Amino acid sequence: MADLRSTFLDVYSKLKSELLHDPAFEFTDDSREWVDRMLDYNVPGGKLNRGLSVIDSYKLLKEGKELTEEEVFLASALGWCIEWLQAYFLVLDDIMDNSHTRRGQPCWFRLPKVGLIAVNDGILLRNHISRILKNHFRGKPYYVDLLDLFNEVEFQTACGQMIDLITTLEGEKDLTKYSLSKHRRIVQYKTAYYSFYLPVACALLMSGENLDNHVDVKNILVDMGIYFQVQDDFLDCFGAPETIGKIGTDIEDFKCSWLVVKALELCNEEQKKVLYDNYGKDNAENVAKVKALYNELNLKGVFEEYESKSYERLVGAIEAHPSKAVQSVLKSFLGKIYKRQK
Amino acid sequence: MADLRSTFLDVYSKLKSELLHDPAFEFTDDSREWVDRMLDYNVPGGKLNRGLSVIDSYKLLKEGKELTEEEVFLASALGWCIEWLQAYFLVLDDIMDNSHTRRGQPCWFRLPKVGLIAVNDGILLRNHISRILKNHFRGKPYYVDLLDLFNEVEFQTACGQMIDLITTLEGEKDLTKYSLSKHRRIVQYKTAYYSFYLPVACALLMSGENLDNHVDVKNILVDMGIYFQVQDDFLDCFGAPETIGKIGTDIEDFKCSWLVVKALELCNEEQKKVLYDNYGKDNAENVAKVKALYNELNLKGVFEEYESKSYERLVGAIEAHPSKAVQSVLKSFLGKIYKRQK
Repeated sequence: MADLRSTFLDVYSKLKSELLHDPAFEFTDDSREWVDRMLDYNVPGGKLNRGLSVIDSYKLLKEGKELTEEEVFLASALGWCIEWLQAYFLVLDDIMDNSHTRRGQPCWFRLPKVGLIAVNDGILLRNHISRILKNHFRGKPYYVDLLDLFNEVEFQTACGQMIDLITTLEGEKDLTKYSLSKHRRIVQYKTAYYSFYLPVACALLMSGENLDNHVDVKNILVDMGIYFQVQDDFLDCFGAPETIGKIGTDIEDFKCSWLVVKALELCNEEQKKVLYDNYGKDNAENVAKVKALYNELNLKGVFEEYESKSYERLVGAIEAHPSKAVQSVLKSFLGKIYKRQK
Repeated sequence: MADLRSTFLDVYSKLKSELLHDPAFEFTDDSREWVDRMLDYNVPGGKLNRGLSVIDSYKLLKEGKELTEEEVFLASALGWCIEWLQAYFLVLDDIMDNSHTRRGQPCWFRLPKVGLIAVNDGILLRNHISRILKNHFRGKPYYVDLLDLFNEVEFQTACGQMIDLITTLEGEKDLTKYSLSKHRRIVQYKTAYYSFYLPVACALLMSGENLDNHVDVKNILVDMGIYFQVQDDFLDCFGAPETIGKIGTDIEDFKCSWLVVKALELCNEEQKKVLYDNYGKDNAENVAKVKALYNELNLKGVFEEYESKSYERLVGAIEAHPSKAVQSVLKSFLGKIYKRQK
């Protein structure tokens, strides 16, 4: 068998080709070309971690038994559904955030021929998931659970995005709206469900499991997803730009970052004034003052403490799980992110 | 029983209240208020024809048997799902078309506090449909068919919207891209499936029917939906503004209207030049020249001919249907639109 990544990419080509010849629509040449280009531009260019982790997880759940070709294909198709979901969110988020670049190229809506047609392209991306699921899973006993799962996770992500948007964008910049509980809510709903829970839930469904019996797995993965996003917030400020591949701008962008909510929690009145005066300003001097305050409050140490406590808690929860196979899935996720530098 | 419309509106309040307390998300006060306002602004303000027609159709399928309270509620809930779908399309279409008003008020994204957050609100509206279906239909034998139906119709609508967008907006205004077959494709996918087929398909599913056995019903309703949109195009130019409630601007907006594709089909080289020189210009003189050409080509007569031929064909197809109950549903739709002036 070719390596996993190239098998995975072969499945992308097959799924794309099916979508471009979907009998539910009469494509014109122009529209078929449009979708072809739109998919190649937006779907496969990421790290593919979420998608690949469906196959990894499914393998671990099968406890070493070799997967059939069909199983590899189906797990890959579900992996691609998550990548499609991610592409859908990113295309639309970039419009809402007025972003310029994504994955080292201009955002899709920035292309002169695209513009706000990108909104409809986002919708198409979401709809492709339903088409893929229908094409390949309609006859499976877990088909309806798969639909419910994608629907619920998409709903939760959109809700997380909503609190993020109304907290960050609505009206004037107002730090009093930021708190640890608000931060937790945003990252749990906006990121954790679809990035951590969804891949494992897909693998569990493929294995014939009932998700209602795995609420504990969901809780652990959501907890891990929150920890992952806190790392992201930490690295945005304290990571090495050459390692993380970008220069963080959370401070300039007035983001509801774990660092700022932690700083708000720890600071005295004088320090709070520094935050209020300097956070969210696109100016090197203001940014430097915020960073100096973060250092004064020892946020690096606070983060390391948070990191090791999270790790211990997660390991404890994982080891309490009755199934060794499920434990191995969860440990594999945790191993990939613990103490990551990028 | 109170009149149908007010019963229907009561169901809206109940569905909204459930969505505002959905246990799958932890609302903040701000976000609950946001969704409340967003729903009231965008969902119930239309004519509600699509939604109400689910209940009407279901009644006709039951051939006069009184509906139970539960049946009225469920048919109403499905009707509201279609209204939610419509709201989702309109919120996003208005952004893509850069529109100003909708249903006599500013478009949602035009509100100063909203802006592009409206993109996420559109997504939320779509997701609410899945939540409503899950809350009220999860245990029904037709639940999975309902999900497939809404997914497929949404997909077809987005595809129709895509050809409309890439035909109308991409690059320079180019009449050579317009043809009767392109027009048919746009209106069939963008309008006919969700406005005509979807309400009846919902009623059929509730009645325990398998939609695979009703391809003929689908074809008739899609045909009717195309005829409906041709009427819309006709009324935009030839309707009385005081009756249709707006002043048509399809000519100024370079719309792929049935009138312009019919004119292109019928005109000689000289007349074609008039179209090319004047179509799509926001200027009274240019518009007047296009309208004069439409009169020269007797498009009013051509439309009347189209209208009576469509009617005959539809009546023929309806009367060929084996079920009297289904016939009555289809005739009710046709009766509502035949020779409409608004």
